[in-house]
Amino acid sequence: MKIDILTLFPRMFEGVFNESILKKAQEKSLLRFNLVNYRDYSLNKHHKVDDYPYGGGAGMVLSPQPIFDAVEAVVRTSKTKPRILLMCPQGEPFTQKKAEELSEEKHLIFICGHYEGYDERIRTHLATDELSIGDFILTGGELASMVIIDSVARLIPGVLGNQASHQQDSYSTGLLEHPHYTRPQDFRGMKVPEVLLSGDHKKIGEWRRKESLRRTIERRPDLLKENLLTEEDKLFLSKLKQEKS
Amino acid sequence: MKIDILTLFPRMFEGVFNESILKKAQEKSLLRFNLVNYRDYSLNKHHKVDDYPYGGGAGMVLSPQPIFDAVEAVVRTSKTKPRILLMCPQGEPFTQKKAEELSEEKHLIFICGHYEGYDERIRTHLATDELSIGDFILTGGELASMVIIDSVARLIPGVLGNQASHQQDSYSTGLLEHPHYTRPQDFRGMKVPEVLLSGDHKKIGEWRRKESLRRTIERRPDLLKENLLTEEDKLFLSKLKQEKS
Repeated sequence: MKIDILTLFPRMFEGVFNESILKKAQEKSLLRFNLVNYRDYSLNKHHKVDDYPYGGGAGMVLSPQPIFDAVEAVVRTSKTKPRILLMCPQGEPFTQKKAEELSEEKHLIFICGHYEGYDERIRTHLATDELSIGDFILTGGELASMVIIDSVARLIPGVLGNQASHQQDSYSTGLLEHPHYTRPQDFRGMKVPEVLLSGDHKKIGEWRRKESLRRTIERRPDLLKENLLTEEDKLFLSKLKQEKS
Repeated sequence: MKIDILTLFPRMFEGVFNESILKKAQEKSLLRFNLVNYRDYSLNKHHKVDDYPYGGGAGMVLSPQPIFDAVEAVVRTSKTKPRILLMCPQGEPFTQKKAEELSEEKHLIFICGHYEGYDERIRTHLATDELSIGDFILTGGELASMVIIDSVARLIPGVLGNQASHQQDSYSTGLLEHPHYTRPQDFRGMKVPEVLLSGDHKKIGEWRRKESLRRTIERRPDLLKENLLTEEDKLFLSKLKQEKS
């Protein structure tokens, strides 16, 4: 997969791209990154990339020209039709499903604003997707794009070894993971639950399922998928409910 | 504010901490970062930080000892009671409200796992908060902690100048931002809406409010706060609804 990132702060990406799986994915030639400072594409003699908003108001707005030109220069090098992703708080909430969808692409282009809004023509005539990683305000799109890149990259076949293959996917099962314990059995008086030491795999499986259900109903009932629950799950959940009331 | 980050990949943070507002906040002595590799605290002779899960199953689990010891070493240097934040997919969803709450603290400690689960005793006996930045899977807590740090840092008084003060806070008004336009009036045939060139500030205000409402109802109806809507807003929204049906 080829990934181009348009940003005014290309150096922000250095640490993240040179460590862990993103480094390995590049070494295995599964991912190729290209950082583009769109200031270099500004036709303004002072290399300005923003300007005052029409209609007044505080703050500046990113001009269409540098971003259109930078994206088009990148698109010209592409044999496939790239997805052009605009990082913005008004975008579609990014989810694991979107990560799966993007992991099938050959070429992604990320557009990262910083501090300011985008000229609307960038949204309507250039971007193919507008994405937001959550309901909080960041100073720029750079961290949002790193998050999306990390979650997409790990889904590309060959990027992860067995390293993370054990991760239960909460977003397909509809359940949060059950608790984990490792050695020592007794850490400063805090003990591992007996059942996990029992060697009885049926019991262990039941305990884990129940703890998953308990954690999900307590913390993220919005994730529960009714159709993935067994009769036994439903019985357990109604018991939990009774205990609370 | 003092921020300690426990991670196995301290170099991942270099680019992000040395650019933009996080750099400036350090230069102004408003933020102080300390990266701690908890592998250094492992009492295991091979500096292992993980081990097999009790009860079986794939994958490894982060051991309690290195993380407890690393957190306690950091806490000993603190005059205040730090918040100890565990980055994990099972955590409370991070929001702007949480960012505001954390921006009042004097000392934050972030714990970043990588690939694997945490021993449950870390959750129940060490962390004060478990946080998740969204419903997608990352390879580690590092990017999640950078996102949280960025959104918290910009709320600390003095960190931002007027740079981003214009940002409308979608999460308190309950509305997504209206479209922005800047020069040129005509960019390759794509034109700025007439109203923004009219100089009529009452009309411009009305247009912006309506476009905010339109964007919110189309993209994020879940954000709308009924009690913050005027009678005129409600009239416009019901008109929009009629047009669609």
